[in-house]
Amino acid sequence: MTSRIWNFSAGPAVLPEPVLEEARENLLSLGDTGVGICEHSHRGKPFVAVAEEAESLCREIAGIPDNYRVLFLQGGASFQFAMIPMNFLNKDQTADYLVTGSWSKKAVKEAKLFGNVNTACSSEDANFNYIPTQIAYSDQPRYVHYTSNNTIYGTQFSGEPEGLPGGATLICDASSDIFSRPIDVSRYGMIYAGAQKNLGPSGVTLVIIRDDLLESGCTELTSMLQYRTHSGAGSMYNTPPTFGIYLMMLVFRWIRDNGGLTGMAERNGQKAALLYDYLQSSSLFSATAEENSRSKMNVTFVTGNADIDAKFIADAAEQGFNALKGHRSVGGMRASIYNAFPLEGVDALIQFMKDFEANA
Amino acid sequence: MTSRIWNFSAGPAVLPEPVLEEARENLLSLGDTGVGICEHSHRGKPFVAVAEEAESLCREIAGIPDNYRVLFLQGGASFQFAMIPMNFLNKDQTADYLVTGSWSKKAVKEAKLFGNVNTACSSEDANFNYIPTQIAYSDQPRYVHYTSNNTIYGTQFSGEPEGLPGGATLICDASSDIFSRPIDVSRYGMIYAGAQKNLGPSGVTLVIIRDDLLESGCTELTSMLQYRTHSGAGSMYNTPPTFGIYLMMLVFRWIRDNGGLTGMAERNGQKAALLYDYLQSSSLFSATAEENSRSKMNVTFVTGNADIDAKFIADAAEQGFNALKGHRSVGGMRASIYNAFPLEGVDALIQFMKDFEANA
Repeated sequence: MTSRIWNFSAGPAVLPEPVLEEARENLLSLGDTGVGICEHSHRGKPFVAVAEEAESLCREIAGIPDNYRVLFLQGGASFQFAMIPMNFLNKDQTADYLVTGSWSKKAVKEAKLFGNVNTACSSEDANFNYIPTQIAYSDQPRYVHYTSNNTIYGTQFSGEPEGLPGGATLICDASSDIFSRPIDVSRYGMIYAGAQKNLGPSGVTLVIIRDDLLESGCTELTSMLQYRTHSGAGSMYNTPPTFGIYLMMLVFRWIRDNGGLTGMAERNGQKAALLYDYLQSSSLFSATAEENSRSKMNVTFVTGNADIDAKFIADAAEQGFNALKGHRSVGGMRASIYNAFPLEGVDALIQFMKDFEANA
Repeated sequence: MTSRIWNFSAGPAVLPEPVLEEARENLLSLGDTGVGICEHSHRGKPFVAVAEEAESLCREIAGIPDNYRVLFLQGGASFQFAMIPMNFLNKDQTADYLVTGSWSKKAVKEAKLFGNVNTACSSEDANFNYIPTQIAYSDQPRYVHYTSNNTIYGTQFSGEPEGLPGGATLICDASSDIFSRPIDVSRYGMIYAGAQKNLGPSGVTLVIIRDDLLESGCTELTSMLQYRTHSGAGSMYNTPPTFGIYLMMLVFRWIRDNGGLTGMAERNGQKAALLYDYLQSSSLFSATAEENSRSKMNVTFVTGNADIDAKFIADAAEQGFNALKGHRSVGGMRASIYNAFPLEGVDALIQFMKDFEANA
């Protein structure tokens, strides 16, 4: 069997090896059922048990209160960019969007089709290399939307945005840092995340939504666009992405067995500190994000010379460091070190960077 | 390893064993990349090669003309029920729907939110146990929509609906019989199918759409709801369901290597004939669908006694015949025998039915 390399992909991203090994064992027969995990009816007992365990582990890990629904949807975060304003915003209302990168901007673009958007802050003036601290909320926003981690720019909110207007409903696109640290779900109206970074494969989207927000959604939309349709049917209004939900269940087990969200946060903190500390000390490489805004999930860095960047990426790829090329919006390098990325891989990368620097 | 049983699930459904075996080999490392199939970036060379092969095999197998796009979307056929009228129907226009089962009815329900629907025919008067031959099209329908195979009721169109108004655009929900027989794509404006019956796992939807229809779609919809968004981005406007597309590529290879659509049709014809011939000869079991409307994919049958039906299903399950219970709308039994269901399984089922009948 080919040995696995260090995979720094921004998403779809590395999954825990024990999860993949278990999925492999169940591909031709889920347990002793004689039917593979992808081949079970979503209405049959074996898959229903998978879906129920996925939801209950999700609730356990994140401490989700009873007045929140846990949904497994399709279409990715991009589809949520539209579904949120279609459900919760009309042309007489205003929603506040915190604009901290490309994904926030895409969310704003979709919301503007349905209602008014107040850009409460933006860090576009500095190519999104920081998280704004000055936020100009509107008086009574229908909701406040933010992106907790910015995959492309390597920035991350250290917690919920501050100074929220009293009673405001907070909605978070947590696609690239969900379950990387403890979260107080009760502070949110809704949290959503495409699975392909911290939770599973692409093609399934986790939505955690408070009952009263869900019920307040527009009732005139086509069935598939209403959250209540999916909630009322236990995410099985139509055939759900069964393999994706199964992998998420396995990832949730892995999170639970590895210290839960506190354990994740501890390891993620260690990994990020090692890499940022080295970048701080390096005379060749430097981090692109402002110090107090740096992401623990996506570490973006440059040499300041595009040719050297390209050589570094090519040399690294030859040595088994996969997908270190930064997004074109930032250039340079990006090391995505999500929950499942091992500490040993960060150590190996730093050693490789030191060697490269010594020979540069 | 647990031995596999005969899986008659209506969907998600049995997949070809060689496909599952190959997927299993690539779960921790796709080929020699050192990165599992679920962990590759959708923008990286290895996955782009998978997506390109999936499209090109799909085109080859079905003989898809150059003026058609092949899209891999999310949300299942249910999402297409809404996306089609949102794109192609407005309140001043009429679309014709052929109503042959629950899924057609759901499609009608969504279409009525956006424009006028002419129910051109319906077999609801006989619990959908036949395919109507009298069809009352409207004068100039925006499009004509039909469901080629009715999973629940065990009926199937033997070909395209007849007597279409000149120039009418035909749209087909082929979720449960796509690629089970040769198809003349040029007769359609659009063909779509959830993958989980004949093509792959749940969570990916194949859409084959003619360029001029695609371009005629409404331009005021949110990005994710416009076909042109996905077409323009090669189905990668946002992260696609990579594992589902990979499995579809493997299934397309398997179809190609097993005689293509002609080979599929031949084997499907054999399997269905064996089962229907036995039902015809049985004094215990009888098929529920009218003879000239019977599906080669889903064979529905009853004993006429609900207690005996229940005993048959329970006894069969004990002997390794999975998911034979019929949908509650029809009752009795349903044997789904899609492309990947082996002839030997049909033989085994018939033998089991004969034994059950002998002991009844």
